[in-house]
Order: sequence, then C-alpha cells, then structure tokens
Amino acid sequence: MTGPATHKEFFAVRTVAEVLAGFRPGRRTRVEAVPLADAHGRVPAEPVAAPHDLPGFARSTVDGFAVRAADTYGASEGLPSPLDVIGAVEMGRAPAISTAPGSAIAMPTGGVIPDGADAVVMVEYTQEAMPGTIEVTRPVAPGDGLVRADEDARAGGELLGAGRPLRAQDLGLLAAAGVTRVRVHARPRVAIVSTGDEVVDPSTARLEVGQVRDATAPALAALVRDAGGEPDPRGIVPDDRAALDRALRDAVASSGVVVLSAGSSVGARDETAAVVAGLGEPGIWTHGIALRPGKPTLLADCGGVPVIGLPGNPRSALVVFRVIGMPIVRLVGGMTDPPPEPTVRARLERSVPSAAGRLDVVQVTVRDGVASPLFGASALLTILTAADGSIVVPHDATGLPAGSEVDVTLYT
Amino acid sequence: MTGPATHKEFFAVRTVAEVLAGFRPGRRTRVEAVPLADAHGRVPAEPVAAPHDLPGFARSTVDGFAVRAADTYGASEGLPSPLDVIGAVEMGRAPAISTAPGSAIAMPTGGVIPDGADAVVMVEYTQEAMPGTIEVTRPVAPGDGLVRADEDARAGGELLGAGRPLRAQDLGLLAAAGVTRVRVHARPRVAIVSTGDEVVDPSTARLEVGQVRDATAPALAALVRDAGGEPDPRGIVPDDRAALDRALRDAVASSGVVVLSAGSSVGARDETAAVVAGLGEPGIWTHGIALRPGKPTLLADCGGVPVIGLPGNPRSALVVFRVIGMPIVRLVGGMTDPPPEPTVRARLERSVPSAAGRLDVVQVTVRDGVASPLFGASALLTILTAADGSIVVPHDATGLPAGSEVDVTLYT
Repeated sequence: MTGPATHKEFFAVRTVAEVLAGFRPGRRTRVEAVPLADAHGRVPAEPVAAPHDLPGFARSTVDGFAVRAADTYGASEGLPSPLDVIGAVEMGRAPAISTAPGSAIAMPTGGVIPDGADAVVMVEYTQEAMPGTIEVTRPVAPGDGLVRADEDARAGGELLGAGRPLRAQDLGLLAAAGVTRVRVHARPRVAIVSTGDEVVDPSTARLEVGQVRDATAPALAALVRDAGGEPDPRGIVPDDRAALDRALRDAVASSGVVVLSAGSSVGARDETAAVVAGLGEPGIWTHGIALRPGKPTLLADCGGVPVIGLPGNPRSALVVFRVIGMPIVRLVGGMTDPPPEPTVRARLERSVPSAAGRLDVVQVTVRDGVASPLFGASALLTILTAADGSIVVPHDATGLPAGSEVDVTLYT
Repeated sequence: MTGPATHKEFFAVRTVAEVLAGFRPGRRTRVEAVPLADAHGRVPAEPVAAPHDLPGFARSTVDGFAVRAADTYGASEGLPSPLDVIGAVEMGRAPAISTAPGSAIAMPTGGVIPDGADAVVMVEYTQEAMPGTIEVTRPVAPGDGLVRADEDARAGGELLGAGRPLRAQDLGLLAAAGVTRVRVHARPRVAIVSTGDEVVDPSTARLEVGQVRDATAPALAALVRDAGGEPDPRGIVPDDRAALDRALRDAVASSGVVVLSAGSSVGARDETAAVVAGLGEPGIWTHGIALRPGKPTLLADCGGVPVIGLPGNPRSALVVFRVIGMPIVRLVGGMTDPPPEPTVRARLERSVPSAAGRLDVVQVTVRDGVASPLFGASALLTILTAADGSIVVPHDATGLPAGSEVDVTLYT
C-alpha cells in the first residue's frame, strides 16, 4: 500500500515574521527609462532631481495687483491706500513694465510678477477709485499673493525619491519640471507554473469527474500585477518529476520570481520539494510557514531567483501569495516603500478560534463597522469572493474574542 | 482698463454633497466581452451565473481515508475502529471502487469521494494496524473532510454581482467555473483638454518667462486610469473662444466624460463658461463648488456627457478631480460599488483653520499615528507630492483643533 497512511507529516516551519525579515531576495530588476505616460505606478530606481527652479519665475497666486507691499502698510477700509494702475501683465508673457513706488500692475492668477513688486493684493481688497487708479483696503506683506521662482523646487533639489511607486501627483510634478522620461526598475517577470494531474485549463468546457480548472493562475496573475510585476503564466505542467524539473528550470532561467501552485497532497509536495531542491544554490529556505491557511508553502532561493511553492488549493494559495509573495515581487522590483493598503477598524461579530504558534488569516465581511468571519473549508473559493477583506490572528494569540476591535485589510 | 478690478466675483456654488448626490450622469458605457486575462479591475455589466455545480463532485479536503462516518463512531486512541483499506483514489480520476461498510479508501487532498463514503478521516487520526488495514482513532461526522459537489456554487447561482470591479479572487472563481469571457462595461473614454496661454507641453525643454508646463494632464491621466477610465489627452488648446469651442465639441462627441483644465483667472473662467454653456443641453449645472481648494469648478451636462471644468492650478485640479471627477468616471463606467480607499486614523498635530460652509481638503504627512498638515500656496505641487494623504474639514466645521482624531485618506 502506498499513500497517506505510510507518511505522517512533520516538516520544519518558519513564522511569517521570519519569512518577511529573512527571505529577502538580493537581486533587483534592471533599470529602464520610460516615458511619463507609462510611469504611473512604476518605481524610480534613483532619486529624481529638478533640472531647474520651479516654477522658474515669481508667480501670482491670485487675481489682483502687483505692488510694493510698503505702499499698502496702514491701508484700511476707512483709509485706503491709493495707487496708480500703470499697466497689466498678460498670462504667459514677461511683463513689459516694472512696479514703481505708488503704482500697481493688474495681475491674473499665474502671471509673472513684474520687477519692483514684492506682493500681490487680491482684487477683493481693492476698489476702483477713478479710472487708472485703485484704492487698497487691506495691507499686504512682502511675499503675499505670490510664489517665489524656486518655491516649488530648487534646481538640483530632489523632486522624488527612489523606491516608491509614482502617484498621480508625482507625474504632475515631473511634467512641471520637464522630466518626461523616468529611470525606473523593470517590472519583475513572475513565472506562474501550475501543476497537478487533476488541474485543467480554465477554457475546458466539460470536466471529467475529478478534474478542476486552474483557478489559481489567473488570480495570481492579477496579484502579480497589483504588486508591480508582469505575470508570465506558464500553463499546467503534468505531475511528473522530469516535466516539472524542465518547466521550473526554464522558469528560473527567465524570471525574476517563480511561483508554483503545486498539489496539496503530501505526495505531490514531496515531489515538488525534490525538484525545487535541485534547481540551484542555496536552495530550499523553508518547507513550511506557520500560517493558516498556507502551512505547506515552500520557499527557495535558486541561484538568486526566489521560488515560491504555494499550496494546491486556490484559496490557500491566494492567502499565502498576498502575505508572502507580493512583498517578494515588490522587493525584486525595487519597491522599498510600497503603497498603503486599504484597512478599516471593525468590531468582531463572533469569536475566532486559533492556536498559538501560527498566524491565522480569516476572511470577513464588513457591514456597519462589524466584521463577520466567514468559515468554511479552505477549498471553497466563494469564501474569498464573498469576503470584503481579511483579519489576522497574531502568531501568539489563541484566538480573538467576539467584540474585539480588529483591523480589516480590505480587498481591492 | 480691463481686468480684475472691474469684476468682483459672486457665483453660485453647490456643496460637495449636493454634487455627489445630484450630478449623476445617466449614461453608462456600452457592454463588451473581455477574456479573463484582461478582466482584472473591470466592472461586470450583469451578474455572472455558475454554468454548473462547483466543484462538480464531492471532493476531499484532506489527505486521509474515505469512510462511512458511522463506522468511526465511538473511535478513540484507546479503542480505535479498525477498517479494511480496499484501495486508493488517484488525483484527477473517478474512483474505480465504492466504500462498503467497514472499509476505507485512501484519499489525496482534492480527490473524488467514492460512492458509499460520506466523510474523510484525516491521516493524522489513523494508524496502520497491519498491512491492508487502518485503525481510526477519532470519529468523524458525515461531511467531515470533504466539500459537496455544489458547495462552492450551485448551477445557475450567482457567482459575482454587477457593478463591483473584479478582484483577483473573483477571477479565480470565474476560472474555476469555466467562465473565460466576462461581459463588462467598456472603460469610459475621458478626454483631457488643457488650456491656458501660459501652458506648454511637458516636453518643452526651455521655458520662456511666464510659461509653465502642463502638469495637470499627465496627473489626471493617472487618476482616470485609477477610476477605471481610459485617458485621452487632447493636448493644449489656445485661450481662444473658437479654438476651445472646437476642441470641446470634438471631445464631447467622442468621449464618456470631458475634463477641462482651464485658466484660473476670472477672465479665463468667464470664457470657459461661455463656451461650455453652448455645448449642449441641459448645460451648466454649477459654476462652483463649496470646496477648498477647488471652488472655481464648473460642472455641465452637455447632451448626456459630463463636462468637468477644473481650476487652472494643478494642485486644485487634482484635489477636485479626486473628490468629484473620479466618482463621475466610475459611475459612467458602471462602477456602482467602487473599491475601498486606503485610510488611516491619526491624531492631528496642529489645528487646521477653515470656514463653515465649505469642505476643506488639507494635505498631510502621517508618521507614527500623527497627521501633520502641509500648508502653502495652492500653486505649489510639492505640497501634494510631499503628502501621504489628505484629510477633510467637514462642510459645517470652522476648523479642526490640534489633537483631533482624523481619518486620513492615503494616496496610492
């Protein structure tokens, strides 16, 4: 007789904290220059410096009049300061005239401050006295109503740091500075290898009894993209040592990260571990993680390429990939400062059992500030699709009592 | 004399709440079918039904033995129940034999439950007695260690609803069900029209005094993508009524939403409003919003196409577009259930002044649970790039005192 009865399972596991702190791939993807239009979410490989002062000229921030601030001191509604209007600045043009003592120049918002002026009085604090003059009804200080030529950035100063994905406003600042190409890390190519004799392509219309479609690969591809990587689905490899070895060698040779969704049975796992162990030095880093679901997760460093062997059931695989895999993909892509995840505080509707010595990820729905745990076999995908997010029962806790305040990480 | 002194500004404004509740475009983008690989983040136009039961067969969730649960009742370590092992199920294959009373069949995780069995005993709760038999040391109930054939989904049942963007696990479920094409809303095409005599293309290496590069359009393009739209940057239109009219007519004719980043000066705004008013019925919905920054925001419905006239300064434009524009793009794209935004609770480091009767959006950094407001002219883009997120001073508040608990919406 072969099979489960002959094999009881005792493999060494690492904690999630140990994995996140200790399994840190050293390689980063190469650097490439991309145009601004393609730079959203990309990770600068080095700080970006301002090529020149920004905005580059002193600029009005209000509609009003460029003045010498000293000419307005003491002005009030009752005793306004009269000034001669000697001209107007046009948008986008250098002023043709300068502000002299006792004079004012009409300014649009965004216009160039003329020589001689050190402030702009808002139009709301002026009144037209007679043609060609205004009265200022409130004093301004030097610098009021304008930004200095280098107030947004100084030539050579750092506009943006490395390691954080570019947000919308970062692209705006780069555009303002005339930086239209950015040196970023290439997206890590992440090979996704599926295996399992029962696993068939999602396009299979009719299943034979015992077959299941590959749910994991399409979902992993989406998570890889969310982590800034480029998914490279390699299809379904038969549960055969030679075929798996060939597929994984190819994947390691051409990828930044390799993800394997392997069988969950003990036999399949033994097979997988044997193949991964032969892929390159230093090899297997852990055979398991103190995580539920997701204990039978294999991590290896095969010649500098992280190989992540996920549990066979899709729900466990996705939980593990969010906890362990996405941080690895981000690191390989140079993302040292990942974007924040949506979270919400909620009150736990009922108690969640756990065991000390492992981290539990529990799926929940959230309604009106109440998080309701979703229980069910880890083979059920609908538990994940019904969930709004997940909570974590910490490594040392034996559970969470009903009514606890929990932080729910929300799915997007 | 022309210009600001002749024109004091009193335009009717709507509150943010009025805009979000009242300015709801009725048109939705058409429906298209996309392959699963392109469906991440796309919005189902209708609920997706399961074509058949999932998993489609009763399936083991553990490594162990398929049994009749009744055969294990009363089993314990001291008094185990002996069972004959009459065979083994292979992954991906229909079982060749049935479980008879007093017998057990070896099961891999994920295997098909043989006829006659109603539970699977985990291998951990069995011991090999003599070749061909096992002893069960803990009883199981019917249904233990397996999922039913329709436990994940019943044929014809709803797998996923309409209106919520597809997440990684949703793609996994669709793949498992064999749904490889999804009917989703087309991405709304969002025309981005820039205008302003001072505005030049970001690729302009050397600026003349008074010129600024178009920072708004590239940043808006990123936000449009984040909202599920497809940005269509239309370049910079001269501040000229005929040119603007032509550009906007073209944009309205070919887009789901039109965004205009117009000049901020009163003159430029009057010009813009006049052109937008002529684009189609019912026309301008509001000339301003009780929002800071962002008061001079124009909203119009031009023959069913929402037209959003943003303030000229990039920072205000981006704040307004996040508050008002992204929800509009999402609605047009059928996204009735948008993904959650990352937020964090923090303590306000210092007081933030405001005025009742408007909603203030204040940029903040967040460190160690403390939110520090960033003040500075709204013309400064670096306030936005330095910020980790923003807080809102509600419409009726006159400010927030130092030490207040605030919800920071974090930038991604």
